[in-house]
Amino acid sequence: MGDTGAARRGRRPAGQDTRAVVLDAARAEFLERGYDAASVRGIARRAGVDPGTVRHWYADKRELLTAMLGIAPLDPAAMVQGVLPGAVEGMGERLVRGVLGLWDDDSGATVRLVMPAVMADPDLRGLLPGFLGAEVLGPVVARLGVPDARRRASLVASQVAGLLMTRYLVPVEPLASMPVEEVARLVGPNVQRYLTEGLD
Amino acid sequence: MGDTGAARRGRRPAGQDTRAVVLDAARAEFLERGYDAASVRGIARRAGVDPGTVRHWYADKRELLTAMLGIAPLDPAAMVQGVLPGAVEGMGERLVRGVLGLWDDDSGATVRLVMPAVMADPDLRGLLPGFLGAEVLGPVVARLGVPDARRRASLVASQVAGLLMTRYLVPVEPLASMPVEEVARLVGPNVQRYLTEGLD
Repeated sequence: MGDTGAARRGRRPAGQDTRAVVLDAARAEFLERGYDAASVRGIARRAGVDPGTVRHWYADKRELLTAMLGIAPLDPAAMVQGVLPGAVEGMGERLVRGVLGLWDDDSGATVRLVMPAVMADPDLRGLLPGFLGAEVLGPVVARLGVPDARRRASLVASQVAGLLMTRYLVPVEPLASMPVEEVARLVGPNVQRYLTEGLD
Repeated sequence: MGDTGAARRGRRPAGQDTRAVVLDAARAEFLERGYDAASVRGIARRAGVDPGTVRHWYADKRELLTAMLGIAPLDPAAMVQGVLPGAVEGMGERLVRGVLGLWDDDSGATVRLVMPAVMADPDLRGLLPGFLGAEVLGPVVARLGVPDARRRASLVASQVAGLLMTRYLVPVEPLASMPVEEVARLVGPNVQRYLTEGLD
């Protein structure tokens, strides 16, 4: 966990040290309690600091997890805010465009860095569905007010996860090199079916 | 494991037999110990041969893993033969059923073993599209005689890769626990659109 004596006694060590202690504590808290149950308060307690010290660097547990995974400055919440406004019928395309907008900027370098690391670690793997569900798919599907939201969200996850994989990690052409707009046009309607159309 | 009495006593059986015994041993070693901890020496021991015999065919454990991608019970070629016959309209559902049929048998243990190891190794990653294209998607899409076969195949790959990921590796519920028939009914039409419907 990287607790220092100072941290345990509640004194506040210098910046970078405390920050590392906080990230260690976040890792322990996430792995032990899962994303949903983890809290900034619990992480602060583990780190031996007060919650305000944690919030000095990380606004909420989402920022802590993205920092832990090395995926800051990706901001899924801002992406979701770009997807929600507008007609429900265009939501599939907007979601595809938003997801690619998050990761296309650095030509997928972050995905190539983070995805294998997360995949290789069964504990980290276990955190992903909770994180993506709470931060990305949950808000989008909740907006629809459909009764089988959880089932639809898991189907959308299957398409989005595979899109990230085949565009950035294991590049399958021509999908990997297509302009974002072409991908949105091709994949968007499939995401739309999962989101809003009759499934059974 | 397929150990024969001869192999256990250390005698070296004829070529193809030994090779099959080595692959069986590699599978057992990888599944039991994981990719990182597995070793050519350990695989040789299981197979009842010396490490030099293993290296006669496979330079290292990466090559063994690659070879394993194509061995029973994973037999993509046989799966494809189950998908091709029948009406073109049902091909999406049959493909989903066939893919899950390959990996559901061991509750996804092979996917959980192979996928992270492949993801973590840029060389192995590079092999995957070629392997899946040649063995699975190529024959299916070729059957359709569509002009933009490569583009369609890459889109199908994006859905199938994500389905494997969210069903076996990073289980997203309820998709991860659904009966195969329900997944085929839900995901099949999306695969079908990629395969045969107008896309632009």
